[in-house]
Amino acid sequence: MADRVQEILSWYSSDNAGTKTNIARLLRHGKLAGTGKLVILPVDQGFEHGPARSFASNPGGYNPLYHFQLAIDAGCNAYAAPLGFLEAGASQYAGQIPLILKLNSHDTLHDEKDPMPSVTGSVSDALRLGCVAVGFTIYPGSSHCNAMYEQLRAIAEDAKDCGLAVVVWSYPRGSVLSKEGETAIDVVAYAAQIAAQLGAHVIKVKLPTAHLEQAAAKKVYESAKIPITTLAERVKHVVQSSFDGRRIVIFSGGAKSEDTHVFEEARAIRDGGGFGSIIGRNSFQRPKAEAMKFLHTIMGVYSGEMQ
Amino acid sequence: MADRVQEILSWYSSDNAGTKTNIARLLRHGKLAGTGKLVILPVDQGFEHGPARSFASNPGGYNPLYHFQLAIDAGCNAYAAPLGFLEAGASQYAGQIPLILKLNSHDTLHDEKDPMPSVTGSVSDALRLGCVAVGFTIYPGSSHCNAMYEQLRAIAEDAKDCGLAVVVWSYPRGSVLSKEGETAIDVVAYAAQIAAQLGAHVIKVKLPTAHLEQAAAKKVYESAKIPITTLAERVKHVVQSSFDGRRIVIFSGGAKSEDTHVFEEARAIRDGGGFGSIIGRNSFQRPKAEAMKFLHTIMGVYSGEMQ
Amino acid sequence: MADRVQEILSWYSSDNAGTKTNIARLLRHGKLAGTGKLVILPVDQGFEHGPARSFASNPGGYNPLYHFQLAIDAGCNAYAAPLGFLEAGASQYAGQIPLILKLNSHDTLHDEKDPMPSVTGSVSDALRLGCVAVGFTIYPGSSHCNAMYEQLRAIAEDAKDCGLAVVVWSYPRGSVLSKEGETAIDVVAYAAQIAAQLGAHVIKVKLPTAHLEQAAAKKVYESAKIPITTLAERVKHVVQSSFDGRRIVIFSGGAKSEDTHVFEEARAIRDGGGFGSIIGRNSFQRPKAEAMKFLHTIMGVYSGEMQ
Amino acid sequence: MADRVQEILSWYSSDNAGTKTNIARLLRHGKLAGTGKLVILPVDQGFEHGPARSFASNPGGYNPLYHFQLAIDAGCNAYAAPLGFLEAGASQYAGQIPLILKLNSHDTLHDEKDPMPSVTGSVSDALRLGCVAVGFTIYPGSSHCNAMYEQLRAIAEDAKDCGLAVVVWSYPRGSVLSKEGETAIDVVAYAAQIAAQLGAHVIKVKLPTAHLEQAAAKKVYESAKIPITTLAERVKHVVQSSFDGRRIVIFSGGAKSEDTHVFEEARAIRDGGGFGSIIGRNSFQRPKAEAMKFLHTIMGVYSGEMQ
Amino acid sequence: MADRVQEILSWYSSDNAGTKTNIARLLRHGKLAGTGKLVILPVDQGFEHGPARSFASNPGGYNPLYHFQLAIDAGCNAYAAPLGFLEAGASQYAGQIPLILKLNSHDTLHDEKDPMPSVTGSVSDALRLGCVAVGFTIYPGSSHCNAMYEQLRAIAEDAKDCGLAVVVWSYPRGSVLSKEGETAIDVVAYAAQIAAQLGAHVIKVKLPTAHLEQAAAKKVYESAKIPITTLAERVKHVVQSSFDGRRIVIFSGGAKSEDTHVFEEARAIRDGGGFGSIIGRNSFQRPKAEAMKFLHTIMGVYSGEMQ
Repeated sequence: MADRVQEILSWYSSDNAGTKTNIARLLRHGKLAGTGKLVILPVDQGFEHGPARSFASNPGGYNPLYHFQLAIDAGCNAYAAPLGFLEAGASQYAGQIPLILKLNSHDTLHDEKDPMPSVTGSVSDALRLGCVAVGFTIYPGSSHCNAMYEQLRAIAEDAKDCGLAVVVWSYPRGSVLSKEGETAIDVVAYAAQIAAQLGAHVIKVKLPTAHLEQAAAKKVYESAKIPITTLAERVKHVVQSSFDGRRIVIFSGGAKSEDTHVFEEARAIRDGGGFGSIIGRNSFQRPKAEAMKFLHTIMGVYSGEMQ
Repeated sequence: MADRVQEILSWYSSDNAGTKTNIARLLRHGKLAGTGKLVILPVDQGFEHGPARSFASNPGGYNPLYHFQLAIDAGCNAYAAPLGFLEAGASQYAGQIPLILKLNSHDTLHDEKDPMPSVTGSVSDALRLGCVAVGFTIYPGSSHCNAMYEQLRAIAEDAKDCGLAVVVWSYPRGSVLSKEGETAIDVVAYAAQIAAQLGAHVIKVKLPTAHLEQAAAKKVYESAKIPITTLAERVKHVVQSSFDGRRIVIFSGGAKSEDTHVFEEARAIRDGGGFGSIIGRNSFQRPKAEAMKFLHTIMGVYSGEMQ
Repeated sequence: MADRVQEILSWYSSDNAGTKTNIARLLRHGKLAGTGKLVILPVDQGFEHGPARSFASNPGGYNPLYHFQLAIDAGCNAYAAPLGFLEAGASQYAGQIPLILKLNSHDTLHDEKDPMPSVTGSVSDALRLGCVAVGFTIYPGSSHCNAMYEQLRAIAEDAKDCGLAVVVWSYPRGSVLSKEGETAIDVVAYAAQIAAQLGAHVIKVKLPTAHLEQAAAKKVYESAKIPITTLAERVKHVVQSSFDGRRIVIFSGGAKSEDTHVFEEARAIRDGGGFGSIIGRNSFQRPKAEAMKFLHTIMGVYSGEMQ
Repeated sequence: MADRVQEILSWYSSDNAGTKTNIARLLRHGKLAGTGKLVILPVDQGFEHGPARSFASNPGGYNPLYHFQLAIDAGCNAYAAPLGFLEAGASQYAGQIPLILKLNSHDTLHDEKDPMPSVTGSVSDALRLGCVAVGFTIYPGSSHCNAMYEQLRAIAEDAKDCGLAVVVWSYPRGSVLSKEGETAIDVVAYAAQIAAQLGAHVIKVKLPTAHLEQAAAKKVYESAKIPITTLAERVKHVVQSSFDGRRIVIFSGGAKSEDTHVFEEARAIRDGGGFGSIIGRNSFQRPKAEAMKFLHTIMGVYSGEMQ
Repeated sequence: MADRVQEILSWYSSDNAGTKTNIARLLRHGKLAGTGKLVILPVDQGFEHGPARSFASNPGGYNPLYHFQLAIDAGCNAYAAPLGFLEAGASQYAGQIPLILKLNSHDTLHDEKDPMPSVTGSVSDALRLGCVAVGFTIYPGSSHCNAMYEQLRAIAEDAKDCGLAVVVWSYPRGSVLSKEGETAIDVVAYAAQIAAQLGAHVIKVKLPTAHLEQAAAKKVYESAKIPITTLAERVKHVVQSSFDGRRIVIFSGGAKSEDTHVFEEARAIRDGGGFGSIIGRNSFQRPKAEAMKFLHTIMGVYSGEMQ
């Protein structure tokens, strides 16, 4: 299985040994260690949606230590959160779980059509907190995309100098897109490509629908008969769009939904050659015992222990 | 009682010993020393509202030394003010009261819907003035929130490097919020969460009302039956929203009002598990003898010496 | 033949030896080595148009390594791409083909009249990836042209300090121009001049039509009887407009079109004294064997081996 | 008593409020708080003499936490130590005792006539560890004195900028001095003057003997009939030599000796107007209970509670 | 067993989470993971003694990859080497073994009495190579010790800022010491103390003999009856001299010797409370299979699996 990790690392041949080491740490930790698959726990909803919407359904989650412990106990590959949440536990849990510091955040007191997050952490913060990677969100389609891309460019250069990995959340948003368009297969594939071109080591996108948003793209998808009917086909296309599978692409679970539905999605991610999931609300918004069972099922799907 | 201070310091385990020392200084000074409770005197109204509105009712307050002496004589935990006021007395009163330098300020010659304060001091200023902490105001909801969050990010990184503590005034404001919304429980809890995620050691918010501003939040508060009927319940919710009580949260007294009303609020803060008050206008806008009696009553409520 | 390279280098006499070395590397690589002619493979369409539109017709192109190998096997002078694509292969292919790192990129999720690309790479990136040059796109005519010119100025200064060459894509665009105007001979010649004045070592423009866009220019073209009837004449005028041929000017192939048409254009470029072509979609959007044959024909035209 | 602290602070009128605050913290902590007298626990012998010579007689002292606790429990004004010893406990004991980081250290594996310590800490270290002051040793008389003075100059400038106090250990040493000369009254007074002129806020010297080392000085002491017969007289002269008593001068206890002798010295320091003692080996090289009784006796002498 | 790691981390409470994470990585890797014991493979002899003296007896060792693989296969906690050796394999072996970059090195083309190594790497190198720690050698006793201590001070401050751990090789040397004195128990204990005071997280010393070098120390060892007869007693004393066992102290194997002798030493290290061994020549100067058996025996002694 370790061979799979070596294979993945070979795709990042321009990166220094430090960055490769930290990518390896992501891939060699937790229940999926060595499989080349990842399940990451992200908890940035406190900032993104507010505390009650995030934690009221399972109040243990108000406590930042809860999420460290959940990620460790469930055997996740990593735990990702903004500065405050990581500062609150990084010392106690030092060395127990790879950490990803999210360097920008966005609140929903505003409801802009063209969102623009704030930079809320630094590469130095990531080093002092012992993180393996920095995380950064871009909103392709937002009228502010240039600002985000350029912030990411500077942060990624700095992070790579320091031997850290770069994880990019690439979420199409903005007034030029229809609501459906945000998860359209052409747009999601495009968002994955942009993140890859910007130098991301790990790309996180939403699971795409079969909708085609852009006319110019629609023409190509139809003429080239790109298969996008099933979710697995669409995952496969997104992975292909991420340097023909030579970048790690993981998919977000999105809002809380039926477990069977999420497991179905995990199977599609697996079958389409996706690298795993980043699952926040579906895991920390339920009691811990249930969350662990839920996460283990998903991990089982990825590892092949479960169907 | 010192055990309570040690317990509070344990929440800041990622901070260096210098920052812990300065948080300890806040918690070990004045009449409430060692109780884990704080009453802080802030005098930034001269900048925020102009001199006459701030000091005419008790003209002694025009003199910056007045406020140092008031904070000392009343046994406050700290005195917070902008650059000019601190420069005017920091040498005379060196070592007599922990100081917090407010690093941004906003005047009301303009009356914008979306306020944006100026950065009016630096971390170096705080060091040369002997402060234990820097203070910074953010207005979540303002269209300028990104600029404020990013200023705070840089300042907090610098302050923590130098062993200072970071106190964040988090006041929801902006054209997206109704007037009522600025103190709505969902919005205030969100503002506290944002400050905590941005790395604040001490968070200052306004006392919340039972109003629910955001539709998405309202749904959760109602379905999860989060108790917000009494002020104590709301305080408890804000404290919970600040990393489950693992960050110091204090509440502002707001505009001048009836003493009995303020004492009632202090009891609610105490009963809800709040860490204390930051009381400006209600203290310095009355004769000093009355102010001291007034502040001692509030301290008595927190220390348990009074009901 | 080497004399031609020496002659070209003599035009860049203010540049340091490092930059001259890198221009020489461009001119002494591949099938056209020493001829003073260039055929460059650019692959920035993944970012500019999205992955499916770029690579679905020849899916090998999803893989970043494909393009390195194509450029090498076809004997191109250089391969140009954005950060992600170069990072994905620069180490494996180190020293096998001169690389140009495109430092700004633009996606088409938006469709602005006045485009403004993002800066997505740095001169440091170009150095660590072993590039001979940086590439930068300007859109003369865009309302954002100042921002682009100033970014280019800073980047070019930095690149020249480090001994890199500067390749400028100069594409007239913007609400002030008609669609026809973007390729009008007066406008294209003007765009070439601007790039040259901004310090470009290599200028890339689109092949111009005989349309004249600007009234003031039209008057001159007509009164001075500047010959612009044939494509070769127009190429000659653009080359003249680029410091009387003392800057390397190459022409883009544009969207995919009939091969005979492209060969016709190459002959015009040759006859007009152009320095070569930069050919993306016409080469990588067809099977590799066909692409090589296609590129070799063009190179044959330039080298004189073919008519 | 606080008036005495205010009086002392008035001597440092050119210092910024931060430095004054930290001097005040030294003077307002412990059993002697407010008296203007200090007893400081220094533990740098581990570095200076080696661990066994320092700690074998009371093995608890091998543990760095022992000394923090001893200084706290005995009510010392401050605890001074090199980097390693402070790093080992500064977080646990944050805010419980003013700390002085010794910024240079010297080992006795060599036995040079002209010693030169190493710089082993920085002002940044002092800030991150929450110190009130930096400590620095100079050896007036050493052939390396320029190097030490110039290191001190730079460190003191930096420390004062950051609001820290500067404590200088001024120990005459070097091949130009006889063994007796190291504690000769003329030489010790001179060493105190040098430290004061170099900008020290607190000066630490050894108790002087009546020996006169330098011929030129001897002449003056005799012609001016400077009283130096009793230890109290000599202390008075050293204090006078430190800007007429306008700098804090404290005296070292030296090697372990009879308690009655040390108490006698404390009385002489008190009677001569000295500001207190810095007592290392005599306190930490005996069982803690005895050490506390011993230190309380000395503090009693200074506070006036004991004869 | 993990509790032991947590206990050890608690001693480094002033360090940031990053440094704690990297110390944890050392302690949680290899066959001794979680035991609190370490066996580290160091290969700096190529620089220190020349290639033939280092590698001729087992020529595989001329190849830098050999040592990475040996450390991995044998289950060492870490591999330590100078820049060149690490650069030669850090990318291939990324993430497979914690690395320590030795930042200074000394060759034996000279044979000074008072050695002074060169600084041959940087903290930035350590980050880009993915190291968990930097290593630095000091020679207490050398007339150049100040220069080394001050280099270490600057490097350690930088490393700690970046979240790296600091490993100090503390080897008494210099014209002031007899040959016997270099491993005398008083001198080795002193060297360990100096490293600890300079802020080392991990201290490496040679196994001490019962010889007492310094007269002043001899007196104390005899009067205090410090037990130093057996090697285990001496190890215990060195551990005590390293902040009463609150710093990780490991012992070097020294020149190649009889296996039974080395195992005997390992038992003494274990019985004396030492934290493990750093074993170079005894492991890489023999065939790999033998080396692994040899190292496993030592690890077995530490883990308790062997007597």
